[in-house]
Amino acid sequence: MKDKMLAVVKTRPELGGTELKEVPVPKTGPNDVLVKVKICSICGTDVHIYNWDRWAQNRIKVPLLYGHEFAGEIVETGQNVEHLQAGDYVSGECHVFCGYCYQCQTGMRHICAHCRIFGVDTDGIFAEYARIPAQNIWKNDPNLPLEYATVQDPLGNSVHTVFSTDVPSKNVVILGAGPTGLFATAVCKTIGASQIFVVGHKNEYRINLAKKVGATKVFKEGDDIEGAIMDATDGQGADVALEFTGNSEAVNLGLNLLKIGGTIALLGVFPKEFTTDLTKNFVFKYTTMKGINGRLIWDTWYQMKGLFKAGLDIEPVITHKFKFEEFIKAMETMRSGNSGKVVLYMK
Amino acid sequence: MKDKMLAVVKTRPELGGTELKEVPVPKTGPNDVLVKVKICSICGTDVHIYNWDRWAQNRIKVPLLYGHEFAGEIVETGQNVEHLQAGDYVSGECHVFCGYCYQCQTGMRHICAHCRIFGVDTDGIFAEYARIPAQNIWKNDPNLPLEYATVQDPLGNSVHTVFSTDVPSKNVVILGAGPTGLFATAVCKTIGASQIFVVGHKNEYRINLAKKVGATKVFKEGDDIEGAIMDATDGQGADVALEFTGNSEAVNLGLNLLKIGGTIALLGVFPKEFTTDLTKNFVFKYTTMKGINGRLIWDTWYQMKGLFKAGLDIEPVITHKFKFEEFIKAMETMRSGNSGKVVLYMK
Amino acid sequence: MKDKMLAVVKTRPELGGTELKEVPVPKTGPNDVLVKVKICSICGTDVHIYNWDRWAQNRIKVPLLYGHEFAGEIVETGQNVEHLQAGDYVSGECHVFCGYCYQCQTGMRHICAHCRIFGVDTDGIFAEYARIPAQNIWKNDPNLPLEYATVQDPLGNSVHTVFSTDVPSKNVVILGAGPTGLFATAVCKTIGASQIFVVGHKNEYRINLAKKVGATKVFKEGDDIEGAIMDATDGQGADVALEFTGNSEAVNLGLNLLKIGGTIALLGVFPKEFTTDLTKNFVFKYTTMKGINGRLIWDTWYQMKGLFKAGLDIEPVITHKFKFEEFIKAMETMRSGNSGKVVLYMK
Amino acid sequence: MKDKMLAVVKTRPELGGTELKEVPVPKTGPNDVLVKVKICSICGTDVHIYNWDRWAQNRIKVPLLYGHEFAGEIVETGQNVEHLQAGDYVSGECHVFCGYCYQCQTGMRHICAHCRIFGVDTDGIFAEYARIPAQNIWKNDPNLPLEYATVQDPLGNSVHTVFSTDVPSKNVVILGAGPTGLFATAVCKTIGASQIFVVGHKNEYRINLAKKVGATKVFKEGDDIEGAIMDATDGQGADVALEFTGNSEAVNLGLNLLKIGGTIALLGVFPKEFTTDLTKNFVFKYTTMKGINGRLIWDTWYQMKGLFKAGLDIEPVITHKFKFEEFIKAMETMRSGNSGKVVLYMK
Repeated sequence: MKDKMLAVVKTRPELGGTELKEVPVPKTGPNDVLVKVKICSICGTDVHIYNWDRWAQNRIKVPLLYGHEFAGEIVETGQNVEHLQAGDYVSGECHVFCGYCYQCQTGMRHICAHCRIFGVDTDGIFAEYARIPAQNIWKNDPNLPLEYATVQDPLGNSVHTVFSTDVPSKNVVILGAGPTGLFATAVCKTIGASQIFVVGHKNEYRINLAKKVGATKVFKEGDDIEGAIMDATDGQGADVALEFTGNSEAVNLGLNLLKIGGTIALLGVFPKEFTTDLTKNFVFKYTTMKGINGRLIWDTWYQMKGLFKAGLDIEPVITHKFKFEEFIKAMETMRSGNSGKVVLYMK
Repeated sequence: MKDKMLAVVKTRPELGGTELKEVPVPKTGPNDVLVKVKICSICGTDVHIYNWDRWAQNRIKVPLLYGHEFAGEIVETGQNVEHLQAGDYVSGECHVFCGYCYQCQTGMRHICAHCRIFGVDTDGIFAEYARIPAQNIWKNDPNLPLEYATVQDPLGNSVHTVFSTDVPSKNVVILGAGPTGLFATAVCKTIGASQIFVVGHKNEYRINLAKKVGATKVFKEGDDIEGAIMDATDGQGADVALEFTGNSEAVNLGLNLLKIGGTIALLGVFPKEFTTDLTKNFVFKYTTMKGINGRLIWDTWYQMKGLFKAGLDIEPVITHKFKFEEFIKAMETMRSGNSGKVVLYMK
Repeated sequence: MKDKMLAVVKTRPELGGTELKEVPVPKTGPNDVLVKVKICSICGTDVHIYNWDRWAQNRIKVPLLYGHEFAGEIVETGQNVEHLQAGDYVSGECHVFCGYCYQCQTGMRHICAHCRIFGVDTDGIFAEYARIPAQNIWKNDPNLPLEYATVQDPLGNSVHTVFSTDVPSKNVVILGAGPTGLFATAVCKTIGASQIFVVGHKNEYRINLAKKVGATKVFKEGDDIEGAIMDATDGQGADVALEFTGNSEAVNLGLNLLKIGGTIALLGVFPKEFTTDLTKNFVFKYTTMKGINGRLIWDTWYQMKGLFKAGLDIEPVITHKFKFEEFIKAMETMRSGNSGKVVLYMK
Repeated sequence: MKDKMLAVVKTRPELGGTELKEVPVPKTGPNDVLVKVKICSICGTDVHIYNWDRWAQNRIKVPLLYGHEFAGEIVETGQNVEHLQAGDYVSGECHVFCGYCYQCQTGMRHICAHCRIFGVDTDGIFAEYARIPAQNIWKNDPNLPLEYATVQDPLGNSVHTVFSTDVPSKNVVILGAGPTGLFATAVCKTIGASQIFVVGHKNEYRINLAKKVGATKVFKEGDDIEGAIMDATDGQGADVALEFTGNSEAVNLGLNLLKIGGTIALLGVFPKEFTTDLTKNFVFKYTTMKGINGRLIWDTWYQMKGLFKAGLDIEPVITHKFKFEEFIKAMETMRSGNSGKVVLYMK
């Protein structure tokens, strides 16, 4: 194995401060594995780091090798690692959990009180090799396509959100037609949602993708969304709303579209405050609202494995494919909004 | 409206004691509606009555106008009935609930302590007209095909059984390839089961139907069922088993095919005692077993409505269509085992 | 039976517009019962009507015979009523449900889409006799004290709120020490909450009541509530928060006191808008928030029956007892804030 | 630290083959801690080993240092152990889980597919020192009495069984008045069961204990159990039955005592086959039956911590206290049946 590798590094605290450069291949710690990355993909979080927005300025310490969505092959295992082997085809869960806090000890490792995220708080996977804690490794089915394997992290967000509500046979509103909203649409389709209403923004590109992955109806700004959904649900409203935009106003829209006794789940991150009428939207409407974060470790991953066998089709969402060396071009595609997921292949 | 109508009546306590004959059209009571039946279908229960087996001898009092699966149009409403109107396209829930027992008062009307079943305990719907308690009427979507509308009662059994377990993304064993097993297969397919293993008997006809409605693999007596299912589930076993045969041995087979921590649901009626090893099959295996009965009133009916919109395809299960006058022929087809559901059309 | 009865009537749309006057005894409709009221109690809703505040001005049409909390004896049953008899010792659920909307048909009658409330939308029970729809009658255990029987409506609100979360063995924050907050405290105590933290306002009277019904610790404005609760929960925060004040700021306090992965339930009615940071309080904290309304019909009533047998002690909350003729005095006691529940006895 | 310690060792495969003898203090492995045992207690499993019954003959390999219920102080931690320290006051979960099977990865470590039990499959804790995998250590509240700390393993069995059903406000039948049945009674009392019916055998000693820990009524063989429970539940039957005897006939009794729609949970181990009528006891009765095993790791332990604060009183169940040197006498007391839990103190 060589000593140096190509990696994407945020080297300077500014937009434009991302470089592809040679860095040392990381050493495998006793509880880690070293993975030869074969494919990786770009998350919204990576865009924040690239853009060096307020969130990134507060959270990220440069230099940082970023990225956390990948699939690859184990090339080395640490001395304490017994359940994995070189040659295993793997992906990874980016939430590094402590294992001993209350949440970790009660089946809630995804919300570990001391959670750190690789590619955000520590070095990530936009590189030829990545060192990953063995506890965070997921063994892929050998015949899972690389493009499906690398997006399990964001797909897992969507699966977690969908499965935190009751979707089979029910009417669902999906707020947001970005990658997680599109994945959620495909998942709802696979598990028998009655009708799936996707509310996009103005982006025709993504609205078209929503139709491809199973939306019953697609709306954009300016449409009579409430009228249409009430009509389509015998005047009751949707059973479930799933929020993927991070726009506080979308939450109020979702609440408004719900039936009495409905559920809304929120995956987005909200830059602005949320203001609502609790009496109307919650108490008299008997509404449940759930904040969602990450993916259940490993329940959600097993659910994805099952859904792939059930025929979950996310291919339309994987819209762009680049060589790893074209990272900047890939990132600019992602930033344009005219994309679903963008994946990059290592040599 | 005429005074007399054609009806299927069990007139004598014996096999063969079923006659098509003219009987008076029933009077509509204050809490009833009168339905002009357009289609009806034959349930396993009707076969028991026709056959005059032990169960029928104990439960049924002749003469009885039997049958409980139907769709039709309301022609008259009783004086206390406000929520229904002549012209409504309807089907009916055959479990007549009291409304005031503990079960009825806590969302469990389908297991009413004083439950009576029309077509079994009182006159049924194998006739041109049927008197149905208004509380038992379900308004169909206007564009629901007659053949789907009439089988909602048995389909509801299957939906209730499937939804009492956790199927989306999971591996499911279905024991029995009769109509309820076939319906359950179609439902599991619609809500994203990972793999659906159907265990039939020796009946090639029904095993072929199972493939048509979505079975991943179909087994029959003599196959290495356990080996195949363990292979297909990484050695863990199925997450869920659903029993529709009424054969006690099938329950033990199902328990054996379950993973540690799995769930089995039973819809069948079991003529023979069930003997099992509780330690091995329940305690050490951490198994949950649920007895299922009827359909949730009306939760299951709404689920069916949602599933129809989600694309639930049960057409392959409706294998035979007769004129109402051909009732005896239809019943003999049903008795042959070489059928799915058998439906009859009124003029 | 006499023709006239004494009743509390809101006669004029103003504070002070409440009169005790003779009115005709109501006629029993075919689906009703007539109850001789033995005891009644004053709800916060009745105070709103008495005060003629904004809510009352929008909702109430004068003249109105108000009040909805009672216990008494059936003296007459309507012609269609079969499950009740003269002599039955009863109370009543004030949410009059239609029985045929989606919510009513799926075990959610308490949030009926066409819900009307007696004593608010129609005449109520502050009177010697009350006409109640038979479907809304609850038969009390013969040995249930009158004072317990009459408060089942508000106690049911509290039971519903508590049971909508997971309380046994868990740490609970109760926001509000009015009657529903106090009832909730007593219920949490009865079902094995680990620690019960009650946050009152400045009202010493009610804070003392909270201690009597089982609060582990009681806080009032100005205390270091967060510090104390974090200390008492190993730095994790409470598992559950229950909101009974209708103060939007209390909701943010509750969210702040929750652990990661906690649940907050809201029973209060909120005159002001609620503003929060969704990312911090919901998404990253994986919080569930539930709006609660009424009582499950009749699940919650059965739970109360069970809790009374389990030893639920709400006697300290019933602080004042008056004769029915002293209604104005009773209402003024309630308005002072220095009371728990106020009950009135009929002759 | 000394090299040798006193320990209880099954030295020969026969009744009587248990000796107190000096053995080497175990070496602390890299993922282990060494605990100085302060108190231990005798489980039914230990009685099986002592008696050398059929189960023991099949499972146990001599020589074995047995026992798995304890509390003590950590004196040494392995090199990979970071979350524990010498001086910690601890107890331990005896189910040693692999961490990487399907069950372990989905919040079900207590039913690990590769589960081993210390004191059964490997050396245990009837000794002055015990080596325990660090992942299996539970840190006790510093002020938890030793006698409560040592019985958390069997108490956890009971808590797990009780919490797998819905007990608050409900009527519960507890089958068996041995230690786990008595613990379950105390837990049901603490979390607000409406009525607790304990069915003992003929053992007056234990029946008296059941009353002390909160049983509403206690029955023994020959009583009209069904009549009494139907009377006490308005003819409905109990909501929940909990089985702790391992007697297959008790399961049928429990099923018989349940209401329509009830739940039975089984913790016992059943030497004999179970035969039942599935139609009557499960399908028409809409019954749920759950096999229970171990304790949720660590959810159940946190629940116990919360219940101790809620006032759970298990003191009456801890009936006998011995010095560790009196092990044989303690074991004979346990074997007599005239005891609750028997604890032993180390010097």
